[in-house]
Amino acid sequence: MAGNTFGQVFRVTTWGESHGPALGAVIDGCPPRIPLTPGDLEQELARRRPGVQPHATPRREPDQAEILSGVFEGLTTGTPISLIIYNRDARSRDYDALKEVFRPGHGDFTYQAKYGLRDHRGGGRASARETVARVAAGAVAQKVLDRDHIRVSAYTLELGGVRAQNLDERLIWDNPFFCPDPEAARAMSQRVQEVKAQGDSLGGIVEVRGQGCPPGLGEPVFDKLDAALAQAVMSVGAIKGVEIGAGFAAARMLGSENNDPLIPGGFASNHAGGILAGISNGDDIVIRAAVKPIPSIAIEQETIDLSGQPRTLSIKGRHDISAIPRIVPVIAAMVRLTLVDFLLRQRTIK
Amino acid sequence: MAGNTFGQVFRVTTWGESHGPALGAVIDGCPPRIPLTPGDLEQELARRRPGVQPHATPRREPDQAEILSGVFEGLTTGTPISLIIYNRDARSRDYDALKEVFRPGHGDFTYQAKYGLRDHRGGGRASARETVARVAAGAVAQKVLDRDHIRVSAYTLELGGVRAQNLDERLIWDNPFFCPDPEAARAMSQRVQEVKAQGDSLGGIVEVRGQGCPPGLGEPVFDKLDAALAQAVMSVGAIKGVEIGAGFAAARMLGSENNDPLIPGGFASNHAGGILAGISNGDDIVIRAAVKPIPSIAIEQETIDLSGQPRTLSIKGRHDISAIPRIVPVIAAMVRLTLVDFLLRQRTIK
Amino acid sequence: MAGNTFGQVFRVTTWGESHGPALGAVIDGCPPRIPLTPGDLEQELARRRPGVQPHATPRREPDQAEILSGVFEGLTTGTPISLIIYNRDARSRDYDALKEVFRPGHGDFTYQAKYGLRDHRGGGRASARETVARVAAGAVAQKVLDRDHIRVSAYTLELGGVRAQNLDERLIWDNPFFCPDPEAARAMSQRVQEVKAQGDSLGGIVEVRGQGCPPGLGEPVFDKLDAALAQAVMSVGAIKGVEIGAGFAAARMLGSENNDPLIPGGFASNHAGGILAGISNGDDIVIRAAVKPIPSIAIEQETIDLSGQPRTLSIKGRHDISAIPRIVPVIAAMVRLTLVDFLLRQRTIK
Amino acid sequence: MAGNTFGQVFRVTTWGESHGPALGAVIDGCPPRIPLTPGDLEQELARRRPGVQPHATPRREPDQAEILSGVFEGLTTGTPISLIIYNRDARSRDYDALKEVFRPGHGDFTYQAKYGLRDHRGGGRASARETVARVAAGAVAQKVLDRDHIRVSAYTLELGGVRAQNLDERLIWDNPFFCPDPEAARAMSQRVQEVKAQGDSLGGIVEVRGQGCPPGLGEPVFDKLDAALAQAVMSVGAIKGVEIGAGFAAARMLGSENNDPLIPGGFASNHAGGILAGISNGDDIVIRAAVKPIPSIAIEQETIDLSGQPRTLSIKGRHDISAIPRIVPVIAAMVRLTLVDFLLRQRTIK
Repeated sequence: MAGNTFGQVFRVTTWGESHGPALGAVIDGCPPRIPLTPGDLEQELARRRPGVQPHATPRREPDQAEILSGVFEGLTTGTPISLIIYNRDARSRDYDALKEVFRPGHGDFTYQAKYGLRDHRGGGRASARETVARVAAGAVAQKVLDRDHIRVSAYTLELGGVRAQNLDERLIWDNPFFCPDPEAARAMSQRVQEVKAQGDSLGGIVEVRGQGCPPGLGEPVFDKLDAALAQAVMSVGAIKGVEIGAGFAAARMLGSENNDPLIPGGFASNHAGGILAGISNGDDIVIRAAVKPIPSIAIEQETIDLSGQPRTLSIKGRHDISAIPRIVPVIAAMVRLTLVDFLLRQRTIK
Repeated sequence: MAGNTFGQVFRVTTWGESHGPALGAVIDGCPPRIPLTPGDLEQELARRRPGVQPHATPRREPDQAEILSGVFEGLTTGTPISLIIYNRDARSRDYDALKEVFRPGHGDFTYQAKYGLRDHRGGGRASARETVARVAAGAVAQKVLDRDHIRVSAYTLELGGVRAQNLDERLIWDNPFFCPDPEAARAMSQRVQEVKAQGDSLGGIVEVRGQGCPPGLGEPVFDKLDAALAQAVMSVGAIKGVEIGAGFAAARMLGSENNDPLIPGGFASNHAGGILAGISNGDDIVIRAAVKPIPSIAIEQETIDLSGQPRTLSIKGRHDISAIPRIVPVIAAMVRLTLVDFLLRQRTIK
Repeated sequence: MAGNTFGQVFRVTTWGESHGPALGAVIDGCPPRIPLTPGDLEQELARRRPGVQPHATPRREPDQAEILSGVFEGLTTGTPISLIIYNRDARSRDYDALKEVFRPGHGDFTYQAKYGLRDHRGGGRASARETVARVAAGAVAQKVLDRDHIRVSAYTLELGGVRAQNLDERLIWDNPFFCPDPEAARAMSQRVQEVKAQGDSLGGIVEVRGQGCPPGLGEPVFDKLDAALAQAVMSVGAIKGVEIGAGFAAARMLGSENNDPLIPGGFASNHAGGILAGISNGDDIVIRAAVKPIPSIAIEQETIDLSGQPRTLSIKGRHDISAIPRIVPVIAAMVRLTLVDFLLRQRTIK
Repeated sequence: MAGNTFGQVFRVTTWGESHGPALGAVIDGCPPRIPLTPGDLEQELARRRPGVQPHATPRREPDQAEILSGVFEGLTTGTPISLIIYNRDARSRDYDALKEVFRPGHGDFTYQAKYGLRDHRGGGRASARETVARVAAGAVAQKVLDRDHIRVSAYTLELGGVRAQNLDERLIWDNPFFCPDPEAARAMSQRVQEVKAQGDSLGGIVEVRGQGCPPGLGEPVFDKLDAALAQAVMSVGAIKGVEIGAGFAAARMLGSENNDPLIPGGFASNHAGGILAGISNGDDIVIRAAVKPIPSIAIEQETIDLSGQPRTLSIKGRHDISAIPRIVPVIAAMVRLTLVDFLLRQRTIK
């Protein structure tokens, strides 16, 4: 059983390779009568597109998703919504040099081991390009969440060891790092320049906040909301850790510190990250994801080739220094897809 | 859609409340001709039973699982395996005092919000008692993994801020904390006594290691092995964070540090935790889980009752000081259930 | 992937063999706050129990289902409902004679081929005994359907070539054949006696009628209501055909005859059997199932043994002459399980 | 939960409306290293295209499916296979007249009831046009079945009351009715001309035969092979009944007539249609489907409009007289999709 479908009710199946003709998503289970236009997908797609540089406008030549089905006269019909994003420059790069060699930190070795063959062009299905379909689907999910006034914001909390201190969500889109702390953003920029000069790469931490979620979402004992969010976020390439609320810090707290007292109308603190016993409690849902450094680096690395012989490899070209910030809208999309799925699942027990 | 089934091929459905007559699991999809006896379940069940104290034998009065179906003449038949564990002292405690009040840090509030009613006796379905069915099912999973020589070991890495330094897996079962470092175990014991005297509780970190996994397990792009493990582990009550390999530390590493060089026959390091692009790479699979402190504490806490009025609450009685070590075999069970499921899923593409 | 779970939202997993200690069902996804007692299951279980004879009361020593979880103070809680039915005389019969030989018309040969071993005692999982768990689960489904005033009635339309002519649903339970036409029931009785004397067996046709179903149930294009009903009914042992509304007769009708004209408030006829384009139309849902004759007959048959050698076989003992009438409540149960599942699925798109 | 995905391991999700820009299917779970080219899809697509007339070549302007992902250098890669078929004349017809009125026998009324709106153009998702995606996916399934030498043939057994008598599979594609009896085909042609002149329409029966299936396919107790085939076939629009082997005739047979004696190497007869206890027995799998007459007829019919007021309706235009023969490759596709799914499911228990 393959694993290209996400969700139980709002089910998203994605397809497509980095260097094939197109990528896409089919959403089955989107409620009918939700307003939806291609423009609804555009902003989020723009945020994850390659080559977003400091001071550049994020709207230059964005990926465009076409809606091929499931929408009639501007409203969803309840039938599957097929989204397609064409690969415009699919044939331009030459990946032949990588046909015979496994890049460290990438899926080259494991795809070959699993399937017995692989599309080596740009990572094929294992490319970060795959996430464009997630982002498009996540934008549709947000349209459904809008109806229930649920908002999701994601931002860079840490990059290359530089951590945001003062989080002002209104400032997220004002800097190229999607960081809610402008001062930290400037330090991140400097760190990126240094590491770029060394031919190396950086990791960081992304935080997501879901606001307006009603209490009651989550399906114990296996499909708890936190468990599903962990899967959703960890399914994004480069993510090596996920935590909810206090997360790993909770492991060093006392019960009297970590417990969130209930008060009339809510909770006095939110170490729980909005989730108790796997079910949303009405408070903000807070998730953090650890992003590993991009494995494609110019620094020479040891590896092996298809025949198992040692090789050295230095990856040149226009690679990003970090998956951050482009991964930020991807993680937001996965949280949206999770929340909308549980929102609809909850209706079956009413 | 409720969420009491885990797995796609090796599917486990659990049921039962803390104070009902019994708990159980139905396993559908276990391959036929696997040797299985009730004794196979006994050891793991003994490790998670309540009241395991320092120096006590873990085999005193263990929970006993009966096998009600799916096994004939000592071999699995390919039909559903029904496991049942009776609650022997289900009526002994009095939980009436908790009927009207929400315990902080527990699922009382969210279960009420979700379902509109709740079985308040001992937490009902949200009780840690629920995990007995996971452990029984996990022991069946291990019998299937045995056939492929896949081993899973879990242990306490950290408790109350005390971290194991020298990990010797052979020593795990020699101390009551399931800690592979005897010296750390002694410090943990002291820390537990201190906090117990204060009426407070402790959290910690559990590490799991899967050995002998073939490369190729995992189903991109959503059911990646690390994503599925994250869900599996996070679905256990009290877990607030999950990391694979270097985990959150990877967020502060350079690419040149974090990448694991390929060498003939394997990898030169294992920051990846045995998983690349969501697929096992043949190296050890390494997972860590952050365990929050037990929310039931004797120290007085603020809370509200069913009518939303403020109340104070002090939880007395024989509560554990930490979910560790009893949670250790539970997390091991979830990793086993995940690995066996992907092992069987992989066969569909051969 | 095994197949012992039915339904997407109201998910029923059954387990148990004919001669194991017990059989059971776990229902995950039953809405909370539905009144449920063991007595709710009793009547339907009584109708399918072995040995119901003409003029006998159907309540003598019925199978009794115990509810092990998911119900608190008489109401479902939204957590899994575990039902168990113990096999009281599981060890009494001797099936050793059938260990080495494949009974024609039974699953002996195919279970051996599929799993490489089989529990030969009374057919194991392939026994009609398996359906007791379906009936128990179906009775829970009906409690949910009750809330929406949906009723399901099933009856014998034909047995051994004798067809009911005047269908009066009030008379179904007045005769041992669950036939709504008392005159036909008498002829059926006579036919059964004749065939019994010959050591042979009979088939027939069961009809089910679902009343009060709202329009809108069914999930095109694969999980159409009629498609799901066909699977549900065909999954019962002995069923070889399923038809909806006019069924096979529609194949010989003209469009002008078969179309049901719409009129204000409904339809002028019901050749569609209450389903159009896979979605309920508000009219009665009408299904018929063809039941093959019981394969266990006293007449001598040719067969082979485990080593492939020819054998002859005559099956003596207290076997039923027909799966009818005991199969009637089983088919009703499958229709109930299907309808409740689609009723709950429909809520996700509101 | 919507229902546009078929299969558990070889999972097909279809999308698209009759008058949208395109239709398509995404196949997740196709094994890697299966040879696949667009030409593999062409023949089956040609057989279901509109306007196949007597003596016309079935290759004139066929629908063409493009493969957008999952194939690299002529082999499947194990990643999702996205197939797309563009609607070439989607805007040419005018369906405005049908916007306000419900056509009898169609899904107009039920789609409106279910979703609260509908794409009325050509039936939208409820159009027979939807099946083009099934046929394309079925052709991929056949490529996997080829590896195991499993063949599926489908043909017209009966049309407008004319039944084929001498079945010679080699002659199926020699006549425009896909009928294995040329004499019956001529009588069918005459019957079609008569009914066409009357402005009416015809139904019939399609038979499918699966050859070369190994014993052991099918997953009791709910996903039995016959149950899954029944769902698969009944999910095709216009199908009102399904039977396996002797089918409804078995209801009137004696056990001694209906049982298939086992003989060394197989079975002496095949009333079972190749399936015992829901598992394939190695014999030919035989399924028949009842096809209702096309509901679009020129003869005036009574109906109602969106406001519930009575209307009369006469549907003119180039409508087919029967879903046969174009439905024949669609039913074959559904059988292929079912068989491949169970073939792959069976591997998980080895």
